[in-house]
Amino acid sequence: MLSAQWPQQSLQQSILGGSSSVLGAPGHHSSVPTVLQGTLVCQAGCVLEELSRYVEERGFVMPLDLGAKGSCHIGGNVATNAGGLRFLRYGSLHGTVLGLEVVLADGTVLDCLTSLRKDNTGYDLKQLFIGSEGTLGVITAVSIQCPPKPRAVNVAFLGCPGFAEVLQTFSSGKELLGEILSAYEFMDAECMWLVTHHLRLASPVQESPFYVLVETSGSRAGHDSEKLSDFLEQALSSGLVTDGTVATDQTRLKALWALRERISEALSRDGYVYKYDLSLPTERLYDLVSDLRARLGSQAKHVVGYGHLGDGNLHLNVTSEAFSPSLLADLEPYVYEWTARQRGSVSAEHGLGFKKRGVLSYSKPPEALRLMQQLKALLDPKGILNPYKTLPAQA
Amino acid sequence: MLSAQWPQQSLQQSILGGSSSVLGAPGHHSSVPTVLQGTLVCQAGCVLEELSRYVEERGFVMPLDLGAKGSCHIGGNVATNAGGLRFLRYGSLHGTVLGLEVVLADGTVLDCLTSLRKDNTGYDLKQLFIGSEGTLGVITAVSIQCPPKPRAVNVAFLGCPGFAEVLQTFSSGKELLGEILSAYEFMDAECMWLVTHHLRLASPVQESPFYVLVETSGSRAGHDSEKLSDFLEQALSSGLVTDGTVATDQTRLKALWALRERISEALSRDGYVYKYDLSLPTERLYDLVSDLRARLGSQAKHVVGYGHLGDGNLHLNVTSEAFSPSLLADLEPYVYEWTARQRGSVSAEHGLGFKKRGVLSYSKPPEALRLMQQLKALLDPKGILNPYKTLPAQA
Repeated sequence: MLSAQWPQQSLQQSILGGSSSVLGAPGHHSSVPTVLQGTLVCQAGCVLEELSRYVEERGFVMPLDLGAKGSCHIGGNVATNAGGLRFLRYGSLHGTVLGLEVVLADGTVLDCLTSLRKDNTGYDLKQLFIGSEGTLGVITAVSIQCPPKPRAVNVAFLGCPGFAEVLQTFSSGKELLGEILSAYEFMDAECMWLVTHHLRLASPVQESPFYVLVETSGSRAGHDSEKLSDFLEQALSSGLVTDGTVATDQTRLKALWALRERISEALSRDGYVYKYDLSLPTERLYDLVSDLRARLGSQAKHVVGYGHLGDGNLHLNVTSEAFSPSLLADLEPYVYEWTARQRGSVSAEHGLGFKKRGVLSYSKPPEALRLMQQLKALLDPKGILNPYKTLPAQA
Repeated sequence: MLSAQWPQQSLQQSILGGSSSVLGAPGHHSSVPTVLQGTLVCQAGCVLEELSRYVEERGFVMPLDLGAKGSCHIGGNVATNAGGLRFLRYGSLHGTVLGLEVVLADGTVLDCLTSLRKDNTGYDLKQLFIGSEGTLGVITAVSIQCPPKPRAVNVAFLGCPGFAEVLQTFSSGKELLGEILSAYEFMDAECMWLVTHHLRLASPVQESPFYVLVETSGSRAGHDSEKLSDFLEQALSSGLVTDGTVATDQTRLKALWALRERISEALSRDGYVYKYDLSLPTERLYDLVSDLRARLGSQAKHVVGYGHLGDGNLHLNVTSEAFSPSLLADLEPYVYEWTARQRGSVSAEHGLGFKKRGVLSYSKPPEALRLMQQLKALLDPKGILNPYKTLPAQA
């Protein structure tokens, strides 16, 4: 229940997610992370990968994992409501973050850093700051629920003949793998071309129009591999999957994950990259990629689709030799309009930042935008917290 | 993206959770619930039990379940952030509610009724209304993620020689049951006395100081019963558990759950009931019950402790022949102070309502209360929405 004032002059005008400048804020928590019965309490500036290692040594896992784990900070993850690779299994940070310490725009330290799983005393204020990208307050410490570390992890990397089969394989996986299904990622043949060509990674399966990475995480190796082999047998025998490989040891697991995780790096070596992070109904998710490929023709080097299919989250990327205003004009607002027609999200798991703050209205009605502006005005009346991020400039 | 104005005169001064008066609000959703790929969209006035039946027929389960399911409405569940019996497995409504339609105090219809698992376009406004007990807006429709219906459900009812063994049995259950552990409830010997005496239920196990109900929910019956029997064997052989019974068929399952679910009913037949709903560190959770039993002596008929041990949630209840101001004076603020010293919550899974709105400061610092009052003033400047609930009267 401690509280304190944090000198306002130490607040930066532009706040980077969980950067070291927000370390050492006052409060009752120590500067060393603690994990007790699966609840981690730590400062905002801790690096996600270090936290992962820390909790894994104690029998737990972080409920989120991302490609950028080696450099991103937990404060930034929470401030941007990061999604990532474990979302399918452990859900949103709105569910797994138990408490926050936040410095408000007027320097007030808001201590909501409890570790309680259940707390219905008044409004759940921490929710305001999860995903608000530092525009309503600066997160200085985090309390987060870490699930028990799974004893068995398996990864299957599969080739699928078409997108319909990618979807059917997902349904079959949900049914046969049940509670141990922890990731269902997909990538198209162009993604595979990029990672094999630019990064010299080897494809572990025969050439296919689509690839799928299925991860299971469970408490009993024997049961898990039985479930997985039944799933694979059914997928292969029914023609949903044409080729596949399975890994259980760390090295092979990492190699299979690298094919998916390093797509972004491969794209950056291909040229200028136009990036979109969209939520769409899964059954229509790949239509946008095919549609754009036809629309853009030879203007684009590559139009690729990959992402967290289990969460309905498509990463759509387009590369070209160099930045081209006419290509951009063919992409925007087309992509946003397409997504809005499906009632999707134009920013699924990434923040809007300053580049995308103008597109918010494609996914939110005017009444919601007005309330967001009112919240911003209430919490940051002088507009000193990340003023050019998230919300569009006011009319 | 539709939006509409709802005539303000139709708003009641005191709003009951999801009562039929809020049915039929305008919007794009139909009056019939729909469930697609596990996402249920329905009006706020739907009864939880009917929704459960509806989604179970389609292969899903509601992520929440409570004793009051036959009469409570989903809108009220969301407005009060109900916890209940499945919290351990599926977590908080802050994670499982995907979208809401809310009527604001000025009559504006706020359409955040999307069904997207991931959406980072601006602030997550729906979170404001989850658990705010109708004081910031009236929930008129809900979109909620329903997990696949488990194929196998097992319940074990066990007797434990002491509270230390209740805790150790929980640790062992987390380890051996892993991802299929879906509930871990406990009750003391006095609870068992109440349900056997007042409701004539039969105890399925030998008399013990404590009883535990362990539920597993999984996708494969054979694997689940193997995990469960290994867990029970270890618990029995190590003396953590002295007697136990297991049920897999619906009738026996319901009979075992009734022992736990009907404690509240049995209490009400015992006399006047003083009820507390607390979050506490699990290792100290029962100390408060023993402490109060000694403190109250013969003033109380019964001092009982039961609840969702897996969530750190204690239901502490005291009965007496009739309401007694001196007994109340011995209970309050003692119970709240005790809880505050443990940094617990004085209202874990129930709402504060109007009776408990004065106790908020035991679990939240003054800065948080101030921000809550500011949010209330922003969203309901005339104070017409449930004016005597949740927040203390302003100084």
